Amino acid sequence: MGAGRGGLKTKGDDVMLLVAETPATAAALFTTNKMFAAPVRYSREVAKRGRVKAIVANAGNANAATGDAGYANAKKMAAMAAEYAGCKASEVFVASTGVIGRPLDMEKVQAGVTNAARALGDDAKAAAAAALAIMTLDTRPKSAQREVKIAGKPVRIGGITKGAGMMSPKLATMLCFLTTDAKISAGVLRSALRAAAATSFDRIIIDGDMSTNDSVFILASGRSAAPAIKVGTAAYRAFVECLTDVCVDLAKQMAGDGEGATKFVTVNVTGAADERSAVKQARAIANSALVKTALFGCDPNWGRVLAAAGYAGAPFEEKKAVLKFNGALAFRKGVPQPEGGRLSEVMKEREIAIELDLGLGDGEAVIYTCDFSYDYVRINAEYHT
Amino acid sequence: MGAGRGGLKTKGDDVMLLVAETPATAAALFTTNKMFAAPVRYSREVAKRGRVKAIVANAGNANAATGDAGYANAKKMAAMAAEYAGCKASEVFVASTGVIGRPLDMEKVQAGVTNAARALGDDAKAAAAAALAIMTLDTRPKSAQREVKIAGKPVRIGGITKGAGMMSPKLATMLCFLTTDAKISAGVLRSALRAAAATSFDRIIIDGDMSTNDSVFILASGRSAAPAIKVGTAAYRAFVECLTDVCVDLAKQMAGDGEGATKFVTVNVTGAADERSAVKQARAIANSALVKTALFGCDPNWGRVLAAAGYAGAPFEEKKAVLKFNGALAFRKGVPQPEGGRLSEVMKEREIAIELDLGLGDGEAVIYTCDFSYDYVRINAEYHT
Repeated sequence: MGAGRGGLKTKGDDVMLLVAETPATAAALFTTNKMFAAPVRYSREVAKRGRVKAIVANAGNANAATGDAGYANAKKMAAMAAEYAGCKASEVFVASTGVIGRPLDMEKVQAGVTNAARALGDDAKAAAAAALAIMTLDTRPKSAQREVKIAGKPVRIGGITKGAGMMSPKLATMLCFLTTDAKISAGVLRSALRAAAATSFDRIIIDGDMSTNDSVFILASGRSAAPAIKVGTAAYRAFVECLTDVCVDLAKQMAGDGEGATKFVTVNVTGAADERSAVKQARAIANSALVKTALFGCDPNWGRVLAAAGYAGAPFEEKKAVLKFNGALAFRKGVPQPEGGRLSEVMKEREIAIELDLGLGDGEAVIYTCDFSYDYVRINAEYHT
Repeated sequence: MGAGRGGLKTKGDDVMLLVAETPATAAALFTTNKMFAAPVRYSREVAKRGRVKAIVANAGNANAATGDAGYANAKKMAAMAAEYAGCKASEVFVASTGVIGRPLDMEKVQAGVTNAARALGDDAKAAAAAALAIMTLDTRPKSAQREVKIAGKPVRIGGITKGAGMMSPKLATMLCFLTTDAKISAGVLRSALRAAAATSFDRIIIDGDMSTNDSVFILASGRSAAPAIKVGTAAYRAFVECLTDVCVDLAKQMAGDGEGATKFVTVNVTGAADERSAVKQARAIANSALVKTALFGCDPNWGRVLAAAGYAGAPFEEKKAVLKFNGALAFRKGVPQPEGGRLSEVMKEREIAIELDLGLGDGEAVIYTCDFSYDYVRINAEYHT
């Protein structure tokens, strides 16, 4: 990986280049927004072929709402990276994050790619620089790595990420680039990535908005000594578990670094009618502006949490619900529980676990989120298109 | 109508009483939240019988999450009103708004009902006092009235309302009490109310949260000289149109008075694939925290509006969308339109119309909303349960 400055952000590196030693097996996930950026359109085609040698990404400009010229620029960006990677442009994933609706300055992109290529290295320092280069409103770089033994041999999985799944003029798209040395086919890799994302990236909420640029890429080099991973085997389950661990780690880092966030919040719904209900109810709680402002105010506002669970469109019975904040009981048997002081105390902590047991079934879901502060409004109101 | 002070709010009248001269035909709509307050449970039963002589409502305490004792209190409150109205408790609609999870102080309610009964009157002054008494975080009272000719005879419809369709610990439930002198059966009145609400109260968004206490009541005295209104007639259509006018007027007043609002915003989606799609897309735009903070910042952030339309779960094609803010063109043919100064100018106005033509079909929908300000966060973070 390497990072370089092209001048797209006001300061620091803003282009990241990742080059695999040999063409890798590849899979990807993208925003499901029907309004999507040029690099998403381009990378979707690349993902279909399942073979990738490089990833190039820039921050500072999302190359979204830029029409056909934007698509041509995404392609050019891939060609620039391909030159340094020694491959075809069709073997390069492209991602962008930043302002939307402005043409990408290709001279700056070229300068950034050139500088990133010069800085290419496979050490932790290069990875850290790459994680910094793709940051926009993030306050800290985000990376994670894990190792799993398959047939006694180590398989490594690592990744960097930025953003928090929200929309872009405010420069906050989620991008995530993962690598592994596993031997795995593109189809199996895609299944594994989908499974891992379902309980990690799909379980973060910052403000409920969805970006035009979200992209998750994974490249598998096949250089591990472990045997090839096939669907339905113990090796596959071990790989998915490890990949999920990496993705959950990255997802939590994103939720805790949401725009203006002062708290990292875990919403844990149990006892729901089924898993789908649990996800709906945890999402409704995590997405509620009233719940989020209460968290900012350190208020154990059980009423807002229960009301959100009640309007989520899933079974709910007030008398069966039990609600705790960081282990302190707030509501049970249809009435608030007078924990008083302790409840107020735990709400001052930086990490808050909202634990809601609906007492209806065995559906469970966890959603990671953050609070809603003055700074969120400031950051998003001050920005001018 | 009459208003009186019971001491449930820190100051001012907090109980409202409406007494019909004779038992009226009645219909009602309630929150669809599965977590609902005691007065909602009580009034649902009253609504089934379709015959009501009085409405009693209090602000300052929502009588929600209060268990079986709360239900008994709602019933007691109806009985207190029934005494002054000369009817049975089962002929009284009850509504509450305010803090949730605290027992209703029935001595204060009794004092309020007694004072309101003493102040009963059928003039504009009494109605204005009633509109003030049900206010919580509202900054101004809200009322509307219209008249329609049916078979040449006047039919009057009027109402008062409070709140903005959001959740309650923050004292912001929506309550609306309507009266008319139309001759109409309970069944027909219910159809008319549903039809009117569908394009008025169902089309307001403040923060996307749903109250435990929302209630809309309508009483029809039958004292108009106009003939009885039957479904499927021109008279019915005229009545629904007039009732809708009253409800839209009240809905707009609520949206413009949303918590912390500095702007009244109309989201007008046209050219959607169908009406359902248009509603989804207008709602997604009105509900987007990013769109709302941009409006607070007077920023014509077309990217956030289009992205919300794109993730709403309805057909969307970037190249066909045309977006205007107060008539100033922002986006067309897949690229932003450089209106520059004019676009920035119109965003400073207090009323903003977001006009999005999707160019796909003839689906249309209007949603009324407001912006998202520091004050929204302050109001909702400072409150402590």
